Formats: sequence, structure tokens, C-alpha cells
Amino acid sequence: MNFASDNWAGAAPAVMSALTRHNSGFAPAYGTDPLTDRISEKFNEIFEREVAVFFVATGSAANSLALAAYARPGGVIFSHSDAHIQVDECNCPEFMTGGGKLAGIAGADGKITPQGLGEAMAAYPDGVVHHGQVATVSISQATESGTIYTLEEIAAIKETARSRAVPLHMDGARFANALVTLGCTPADMTWKAGVDVLSFGATKNGCWCAEAVVFFDPEAAREFEYLRKRGGHLFSKSRFVAAQLDGYFEDDTWLAAAGHANEMAARLADGVRNQGGRTAWAVEANEVFPILKRRQFEALEAAGAKLYEWPAKGLSSNIAPAGDEVCLRMVTSFATTEEDVTAFLKVLSEAA
Amino acid sequence: MNFASDNWAGAAPAVMSALTRHNSGFAPAYGTDPLTDRISEKFNEIFEREVAVFFVATGSAANSLALAAYARPGGVIFSHSDAHIQVDECNCPEFMTGGGKLAGIAGADGKITPQGLGEAMAAYPDGVVHHGQVATVSISQATESGTIYTLEEIAAIKETARSRAVPLHMDGARFANALVTLGCTPADMTWKAGVDVLSFGATKNGCWCAEAVVFFDPEAAREFEYLRKRGGHLFSKSRFVAAQLDGYFEDDTWLAAAGHANEMAARLADGVRNQGGRTAWAVEANEVFPILKRRQFEALEAAGAKLYEWPAKGLSSNIAPAGDEVCLRMVTSFATTEEDVTAFLKVLSEAA
Amino acid sequence: MNFASDNWAGAAPAVMSALTRHNSGFAPAYGTDPLTDRISEKFNEIFEREVAVFFVATGSAANSLALAAYARPGGVIFSHSDAHIQVDECNCPEFMTGGGKLAGIAGADGKITPQGLGEAMAAYPDGVVHHGQVATVSISQATESGTIYTLEEIAAIKETARSRAVPLHMDGARFANALVTLGCTPADMTWKAGVDVLSFGATKNGCWCAEAVVFFDPEAAREFEYLRKRGGHLFSKSRFVAAQLDGYFEDDTWLAAAGHANEMAARLADGVRNQGGRTAWAVEANEVFPILKRRQFEALEAAGAKLYEWPAKGLSSNIAPAGDEVCLRMVTSFATTEEDVTAFLKVLSEAA
Amino acid sequence: MNFASDNWAGAAPAVMSALTRHNSGFAPAYGTDPLTDRISEKFNEIFEREVAVFFVATGSAANSLALAAYARPGGVIFSHSDAHIQVDECNCPEFMTGGGKLAGIAGADGKITPQGLGEAMAAYPDGVVHHGQVATVSISQATESGTIYTLEEIAAIKETARSRAVPLHMDGARFANALVTLGCTPADMTWKAGVDVLSFGATKNGCWCAEAVVFFDPEAAREFEYLRKRGGHLFSKSRFVAAQLDGYFEDDTWLAAAGHANEMAARLADGVRNQGGRTAWAVEANEVFPILKRRQFEALEAAGAKLYEWPAKGLSSNIAPAGDEVCLRMVTSFATTEEDVTAFLKVLSEAA
Repeated sequence: MNFASDNWAGAAPAVMSALTRHNSGFAPAYGTDPLTDRISEKFNEIFEREVAVFFVATGSAANSLALAAYARPGGVIFSHSDAHIQVDECNCPEFMTGGGKLAGIAGADGKITPQGLGEAMAAYPDGVVHHGQVATVSISQATESGTIYTLEEIAAIKETARSRAVPLHMDGARFANALVTLGCTPADMTWKAGVDVLSFGATKNGCWCAEAVVFFDPEAAREFEYLRKRGGHLFSKSRFVAAQLDGYFEDDTWLAAAGHANEMAARLADGVRNQGGRTAWAVEANEVFPILKRRQFEALEAAGAKLYEWPAKGLSSNIAPAGDEVCLRMVTSFATTEEDVTAFLKVLSEAA
Repeated sequence: MNFASDNWAGAAPAVMSALTRHNSGFAPAYGTDPLTDRISEKFNEIFEREVAVFFVATGSAANSLALAAYARPGGVIFSHSDAHIQVDECNCPEFMTGGGKLAGIAGADGKITPQGLGEAMAAYPDGVVHHGQVATVSISQATESGTIYTLEEIAAIKETARSRAVPLHMDGARFANALVTLGCTPADMTWKAGVDVLSFGATKNGCWCAEAVVFFDPEAAREFEYLRKRGGHLFSKSRFVAAQLDGYFEDDTWLAAAGHANEMAARLADGVRNQGGRTAWAVEANEVFPILKRRQFEALEAAGAKLYEWPAKGLSSNIAPAGDEVCLRMVTSFATTEEDVTAFLKVLSEAA
Repeated sequence: MNFASDNWAGAAPAVMSALTRHNSGFAPAYGTDPLTDRISEKFNEIFEREVAVFFVATGSAANSLALAAYARPGGVIFSHSDAHIQVDECNCPEFMTGGGKLAGIAGADGKITPQGLGEAMAAYPDGVVHHGQVATVSISQATESGTIYTLEEIAAIKETARSRAVPLHMDGARFANALVTLGCTPADMTWKAGVDVLSFGATKNGCWCAEAVVFFDPEAAREFEYLRKRGGHLFSKSRFVAAQLDGYFEDDTWLAAAGHANEMAARLADGVRNQGGRTAWAVEANEVFPILKRRQFEALEAAGAKLYEWPAKGLSSNIAPAGDEVCLRMVTSFATTEEDVTAFLKVLSEAA
Repeated sequence: MNFASDNWAGAAPAVMSALTRHNSGFAPAYGTDPLTDRISEKFNEIFEREVAVFFVATGSAANSLALAAYARPGGVIFSHSDAHIQVDECNCPEFMTGGGKLAGIAGADGKITPQGLGEAMAAYPDGVVHHGQVATVSISQATESGTIYTLEEIAAIKETARSRAVPLHMDGARFANALVTLGCTPADMTWKAGVDVLSFGATKNGCWCAEAVVFFDPEAAREFEYLRKRGGHLFSKSRFVAAQLDGYFEDDTWLAAAGHANEMAARLADGVRNQGGRTAWAVEANEVFPILKRRQFEALEAAGAKLYEWPAKGLSSNIAPAGDEVCLRMVTSFATTEEDVTAFLKVLSEAA
């Protein structure tokens, strides 16, 4: 019963198989190999247009380097207060952007709104040197709360960003999970909705270290390869990042993996609700935040389940656990089994 | 006939096998898994003492973060003018150290000398704020010229570094190759000779992305995990870096790989010399810089050999190619075959 | 009627006179002159102990370099959300600290509390690499709201900082104003209450560009001269910063200037209250935030008064302007005249 | 007999007088005052075109921020090996440019040549990510050797810079001294010869802290005010920088000051030569590097002269001191007196 995190899983079979397959022989180093070229082309196909794509190997690198490509002196990056770039990257964005400031915006369901964004940006009027200057807006799709921005919500945020002439970044660490839920195309969820640069995450969804920074504005990408190298993020045997992605895209492995993870999350959520429980947020991707009795949590741990208590502090009152309740965080992945889901719900029921 | 670079090879069989082996099941993320612990312990064993070891995935990250751990404002890092940190890392060391300066020191055979180092450091007297301050000395073992520092040479450089109270860093991108040549222990070649921090390279010698920063002074390592994370170099599925190293160390795979590469390089050098040719530098590891007739180079390329012309500029007159000669760079690895070596020498001979 | 800001004033007569006096002849450059030595000694006297003092010329430099002296990778600096370092220094602290994060803490009266600080720091537990690590606590004395921390309040904040082993920085841009109000010694208000490093501001109080970074912990100051020079903040003709401070300290000019400014602010506040008005915060230094009728504001502007509307957004409901009211910001200085105060109150009364 | 440095002098009378004159009354802060506007306009006049000008207060700030305006990731800045930015700014350029690398170019007479520059830049081919990328070329006018680039030399260097599409920066710490020697216009010596951005120095020539960064390409200046503020280099009472420049430009004080300094230097050089001595480099501005007998140096010091021994190391053999000779460095300024020059030559003669 491992629901600790999607990054506790290993690599999906298709990914591992591709790694093995592409291991034989020699290949040019530093991303100049034919496989890297081929997978880069694949991104054009996936996004139905020419993109500038760069492979890196960690999500922090993808996010921070993407933001660095739009860095300005005294620049301010706007995102939800709970965004990964805000709280989980140990100042990597601040460092890579030469001292950028991350302005956090509160918002229900882990999402920022055009209004919240507009107000936050209003504190940084154009031309007032003291406060710094607006630089980027970043949204996470799916969010840290396991929710999803609709295409309309993305477009509306873009409008607000555009009003201040700043680009829109999407942290797609769980891009595929969101995509499957929305049932739209990658193009719909990104550039057609106004996204300028995407951190395309594959690690959490079945690779072991493969992320891509995808620029829909080639001009902004102009010096990105130097940013990546300056950050120590250009791999000599870069073909192995491409190899992972080859397996990832093969037979739509990525969509199947995300679909499975989402399905497992949905079953968990349904099971919780069927037992009269609730979740802190709607379960729209592969994260579930059930609010359970503490004794249920204890029973789960006793049964060997891996899952974490989520800090109640910060949860708005309508969703916060009350009395003897506790909020947990569970994450599913391609590796989550139906057996584990069933086992989880059984323990839950017994400890109700 | 691929002699382009050791990073054109894939992963050694033992490494790929370990990757597959450790893929099953779940493991805690971000380097908190048991395998990472076990491989970290292995470093204590290899170096015959307690060390503080941190895994990263690129050599630039290893070097730059190691240097960042000793960064000082206005700090100057001393190394050979041809060192990788000087010319091949796109300012990653400068960036990670908050604007460090890399002072290059000329030196025969790709090596710095205590005298050269002392003179270079003399330009930065203690307490003269204008010039900056001495921060670190870095040597490459093996060097970019394919040569090796003897233990006495390392110790002598350390003495000079110690006279200015700066630590000694070793860029061990080709650590195993040097180790095999010297026939000493890892401890001998590092802390016993005065090395304070080591970039332990495994990528070029058969991993696909595995490097370790090894501190022999735990105090200096105190905040390294934050430096690594701030740089975006902490992997979520970090067990796969450890897995590579598990395969790398298994049955002394690493020493066998380096031994083979060195042996292939030696055969190439012997073959060149047997045909009356010469190499720019002594062949002490897995790099060969033969000086050939240009027609030989052309014949090799025509035969499909992968190898590069090395810029004559910068070579001292006694080793520089003359007339119709050209200096080439060839690198061997675990993947270099005897057949390729034989084929190379045959073409050479035919085009003599 | 100029109440725009204390930095709209020029230099106090004693300061200008000292500049002229110390202009004659030659003096060693870069802070190695006898006058700099003498004024540095003066700081020992003022603070009743050995201090390490460094002169700079802007408040942003003083604050940011002081914080940089305690920078850590992934470091988080805690201060009030309205602190100058948070909102008015265009990421200078973030930049100088290599990507530090500034965590803002809400708090009544422009002050943070031990509880608020403790909660904010709790989000960054020791050893959790993802969030970063606690680095510094910074308080402003006087605050941006024109209020003053009592010695007990400072000591209590220090206790909380000490519980996480982080140093306490004081932004003393209006140090003298606070000192005069408290009627204590500089030692009382700083190291005796637990301050580790002080930005000693003199510019706003009668110099034209003179600030001092004062370390009460000499060890922390060890590399500060390199930080200052690396930031471009070491002046060649540094004696002129010292000269300003010579005039500043002469005959307690600084205390008289601050006393006058505080007195003018008090009269303004009294006048407002006597007319039935109120101020957003207690007037404890040289800033007044009166809440007036908008027609009064218009009358003042018509009469040529310089003063600014203060954003109501962010003011808690009990102090925010209501209906046709507006919150203004007025700052007094050594240059504020009684005539201007009288004139202001007269306009106010007429437009009541 | 003070020839230690031009920054040992105080402020010229006209400058001090302007400081006093502009001290009265209030003025808007942070460079928004009318005087700053007026002096900015003056720069348009001086340079016979629209320029974007920003005041700072140290030469390191001017140089480093100017270079930062053209920073690129992995960027390399090319200058003479002895340039101030290379050896006397404690990595301020490296820091402000986010880890820029300073490539030093050797060259006779303290000057780089188009050939030397071209060769240095050739080590950084476009598109080779490993080495970094060319970013800026910087020349010093006058040079650290007290020599002057001719207009033709500047134009030729510009051609080489243009061939790689990088801008040309001029460190004009001794701009006026060079200008007076060349007898050309400021426009001739800068943008008409191809300079893109100028550090216009006034501190060494009679101000106490006044430098201007002058962009001839307004687009490149677009975010400079944020760079300046982020570096802590925007002064609140900025009118005092403008005030210094008001005095500096008044009645061509600046040209007279530089003319006097140059004249004093010329007399020193003539006197040395008349006594059979020589200087290491041609004396074209306000620096003299006489090569004297050591006993002459000792006699000068005994007589109270302030001047420094210049490191012989690094001097090419044709100009290096031989036998009992020593190379000294002497700098003149507006404050150098004819009496001191005469006294110097007298001591020299007596100790011959």
C-alpha cells in the first residue's frame, strides 16, 4: 500500500526497456545524437507546431531554468502560495533567476485566479524601481492540491498576464495527469490557452529522470542552452534522457500511465466518499487528500500503508479536518495496484 | 572505430543490469532510500574512512557544487588553463560560486606545478580586497592531456595550497583511469595526498549519469545538500544514481573498465610509436593525442573513424604538429574494442 | 510644507561643514585613511564595545550586504511583510544573498511578534532540504509604520531567533529616531537586546550618503570587506563617508536631528488629533500616517504640501480609512520647520 | 609630494562648491529631482546626441553594471589582462553578470589589439555551449598603463567586436584625461568610434563619488535602472551625485582638471627623461611609470614622497627595470602642484 508519492515509483516497463534498447553502441554526446533529434521532433508532433525543446533531468531544473529564461533584474514571479517553485525547490528559482522574488498568491483549490493575480501584480507597478518588476506568471497543472485548471481558467489567467506583458509558465510536473482528465490535446492545454513555456514532466509519470522545457516562443529560447549548461544541467550521455522519453511516448505509454494513476486516485476518492468520508479538494488527477479519522490513519500505518499527514495549517476552514480528523496526502502512479487500493479501503472500512 | 570521447559510450552492462535490478518496487525519494545509504557506505569503505558523499548526475554539477562549498566573496579558483572547469563548463563554476574567478595556470603535460600555483596565488595577497581572495585549488586527475599527477606531485601542490590555507579539489572525471595507472588506493590518491574534496566521476567510465562529490572534511560538507538542491541537482528518483554506482562497484567493474580503457589507449599509443609516430603527451590514462600526417587523418576519417583534430594553438613548440602534421584527440573507454584498435593502426599504416 | 520623505532633505549643516573641512589635502583611498579609522573607533565608543564597522553609502547596500554576510544556500530571511527589504529594494537582498528568499510576516503596528516569527520559521524545519533553511531574522527600528520596538520586544524576538540559531539583523535606517524615543543607549537597543548586525542609517537623518554596517559578532564580519567590494560598494574616496559621520556625531548632531524630527512628527500628530482626527499607527518616530478627509488632502496639495496617499489596501480594518477618508504618509526630518507644521495644521483646520 | 593615486585627492573646489550650493531645500529622491534631469540633459549635449545616462557612485559599480546590462548566460567579457575590471574589482563584474568570465588579453602598452581580441574570441565559437559565449569587449581609456587608444585603434577594435556581434564597453575612469590628450570630442572618442556603453568617470578627476553609465544604445539601457537598484546603487539623495557633476562640468572644470593633471604628468616624465631616465610606457594621460635607481626611490620616500613600486613581474623585457632599477607608479590629478613636481625632480637629481 504505497501512496507516499509518485516519485517513489521506479521507471515504467516501457521506459526501462527503451533505456536498455538505446544503450548499445556509441552516440554523440551532449544532446547532439540522432535519438535526441528524433524525440525533439516528437514534441513538435505532440504540440502540433514547431517548439523549442530542451531536456533536463529534474523538475526543479526544468522550472527554474524556464523561469530564468525570462528573468529580469528585480523580477517578480507570481504563482500560487503552495506552488512547488514556492515551497519545494530550496530557492532554486531565486538562484537561477539572479535573485528573483517569488510572490505567492492565495487561492482556493490550489489555483490562482485572474483577480488574485491582478491584485498581486498591482503591487509592482511598471516603472517603480523600488518594488522590482513583474517577470513571469507560473501555474501548476495539475496543482499541488491535485486539482486542474480548465482551459478557460488558463486563458483567463493568460489575459491578466498579458495585461502586464509577462509570459505564462506552466509547471507540468503532472502534465499528463491533467491532460488525461481534461481530455484535450497538449496544444489546447498549453499554447492555445496562452502558455509560453512549459515544464513538461515525465519523471513522476514513469520515467526516472526526464523532463523537458518546451518553449512556444522560440525567441525566448534563444540562450536557453547556455542557461542549461551554466546550471550544470546538460548531460554528456544525454541520449538516455531521450531514450526514456522514447519509451514514454511509445504506444502512448505516458497517457496510459497517467490514466491508470488518475483512475486509482478516483477509486480511492470514491471509496472514501462511499464510506461517508470526504476529501479536502476535488480529485482531478493523481492526488487524493482524504480527511479521515485519526484512528483510520493509525490503522493504515499499522497495516503498512505509506501515506503522509498533510498540515492542517493553511487549509481553509471549510476543508480543514475537525475534531479527531486528520488530512492525509496520497499520490498514485502507474505503479499503483488495484490490490493496494482495495486493501486501503478495506482497512479504512474496518477502522471506521 | 569510435574514439570520439568516453562519453559517446553507453552504460556498461553491469551498470545497466543494476538499473534494471533496482527498478522494481517503491523507494523513498530524494536520496533517502536504503540503496543510497548502502552505496554511501561503500564510499567509506573505498576511501578507508568516513566521508561525506553526495550524488549528482553531471560532472559540471559535481565540480561546480564542490567549488561552491568553498566559495568566498571575490574568491579565486586556481587550476590549469586547460582544466575542464576553465574551458568546458560554460561558467557553471563562476555561477555556482556567486561570481568566482577562475585563474588559469599554464603548465607542461596538462599539470600545474607548486611553483606555478604559488606564483598565481601571489597575485592575490591576503587582505588586498581589490584583487579578491584565494578560494580553492583544483587539479584534474587524470588531466585533460591524458596525463597523471603522481602522489608526490599532488602532495606538493597541497603544500602550496596549504601555505595559503585554501582547500584542494580534485576533478576526478577520469578518477578510475588515474587510479589504475598509479596502482595505489583511492585513499592514497586523495585525502592521504591532501585532497579535501573530490569530484568522483563514474559517467565517463561506464555509468550513464553518476557522479559523487566526496568531502574528506565533513565540516565543509555541512550545507552541501542545500547547495545541491538549490542548483536543481537533487533527483527525486535518486535511487537510480545509486543503482548505477552499485553496478559500477560490483565485482570491481569500475577498475576493470578503466583498466581496459587504459590498455586500449596504451595499444594505440604503442602502435603509433611503432610506426615512427609520436604523441603530444605521455599516454597515462585513456586519452591519446597522436601527431599524425594529415593524410593519415583523412584516411581514418574516410574509413569511418571518429576522432577529433586537436587545436595546435596552445601546444608548446616541442610537441606541436609541424608541416603536414596534425594533432588528434582519441579517447578510449570500456566500450572500445580491440578490433577497433587494430583497424585504426591498420589504416594508419596503410596511409603512412 | 514638505513632508514627502526624510530623504528629500539635503545634508545637515554640521555634515556639510564636515565634508568641506575634510576635503583639503590628500588621504589614502578605499577606507584606509585616518579619518575612517577615527570614526570607526567612534562606533566602539557609541556602542560601548568593540564592533566591526563598515561604511557604505545606501541603505539597500547596508541591509543587503549585512544579510549576505549570513547567507546560506536556500536561505530564508524573515521580516515584516512591509519591511523595506521586502518591498523597496528591488530584490537587492535576494541578489546579494545568492537567491535568498524573503518570507514576510504579518503583524500589527508594522512589527513582527515572536509568535508570528516562530510560526513562519516552523515552515522551514531544520534538515528538510526542499523548503530551504532559516538564515536570518530582520527587524526595522523604527518600523515602516513609524512605530518602535521596545527593548523587551526585541529581546523576545531574539529568543525566538535563537531557538533556531539564526542571527538578528536590525534595519536601522531610522535608528536615531528610535533611539531618541526610547531614551536608551545604542548598546541597549542593539547587542544588549540580542541584535547581531545593524544597518546604522545616517542618510535619512542628515547625511547625504552615509550608512554603516555594524557587526557585534566579529567572526561574522570576517569576509565582509570582500562582500562590500564585490558589490561595488567600496568607495575610493571613502573618507567622505567618514567625514559625513564626523559631522553627524559632532556635538550629538545626530540625536538633535532625530529629536527635532520626532518632535515635529509629534506636533503633527497632536494637531491632527486635536482636530478630532486620528493616525493609522502610533507616532513614535518621524513618520505620521494621518487619516484625513479627502478634501483636506486636496486642500493640502492645493496649498503646495508634499505628502503621499498611503495605500489603504493592506491596512487592517480598525485603522483603514472609511468613507471619504484617505490615509496619508508624512515624514519629518531635521529640515522640517515649525512653520511648515503650523501651516499644515492651519490648512487642515480650514478644510475640516 | 603626493603621487600615490588620483583617488587620494579630495574634491575639486568647483565640485565642493556645487555640493554646498545644491544642499539647500528639499528635492525629490532617487534621481527624480530637476537637477538630475538637468545634468542628464547635459550629457546629451556633451555627446551631441540622445544618450541614456545613469548616475552611480563608484567606478566598480559603473563598470560592472554596464557589463551586466549585456550579460548572457555563460558570457565572456574580453579586456586587457591588466584592466581594472580584471584585477581590481574583486569579482564585481563576475558577480553582477551572474557568473561572467573575464578573459584577459595580453597587449603592449596596456592596450588590446584587434588581432589579440580576435584570437581570444576565437576560443569561444558561436554555438559551442561548452566554452560559453562571447558577451562584451571592454577597453580602458586611458589604460592602466597611462596610455591612450587612438580613435583609429578604437574603431578597429570595434570592427572585431562587431564581427562577433558583441558590444564595446569603454571604462572611462580617466575619460577626461584621455579626451584632453586626443583633443577630440567626447562623441569622437565614444559612439562615433563604435563605443556602445561608457563608464564615464568623474571621481578620479575631481569629484568625490560621481560616475555615469552612458548608453549610446537606448534599447540596451531598458532595464538598467533595475540593475542599478538591485545592486544597491540607487542613491536616495541622488541629487548630490548630480550636484558634483554640475560643478564638474561648470566652466569646463573637468577639462581643466584633466589638462592640469596631464600637464603635471608630462613634466614629471620630461624631468625623468632629461635626467637620462625612462618610463615604462609613454606618458599620455596622468600616470607616469618611471624606471629609477632604487636609491632614487629611497631618497624620494625619505623626502616624504608618496608613490608606489610597480611589480616588475609582468613587464615585458624591453621595459622592465634592470639591475638596481625599480619601476614606480605615479598618478597626478587636479590637486597635484607644480611645487611637488619640482621637488620630486630635485630629489631625483640629487640621488642620481
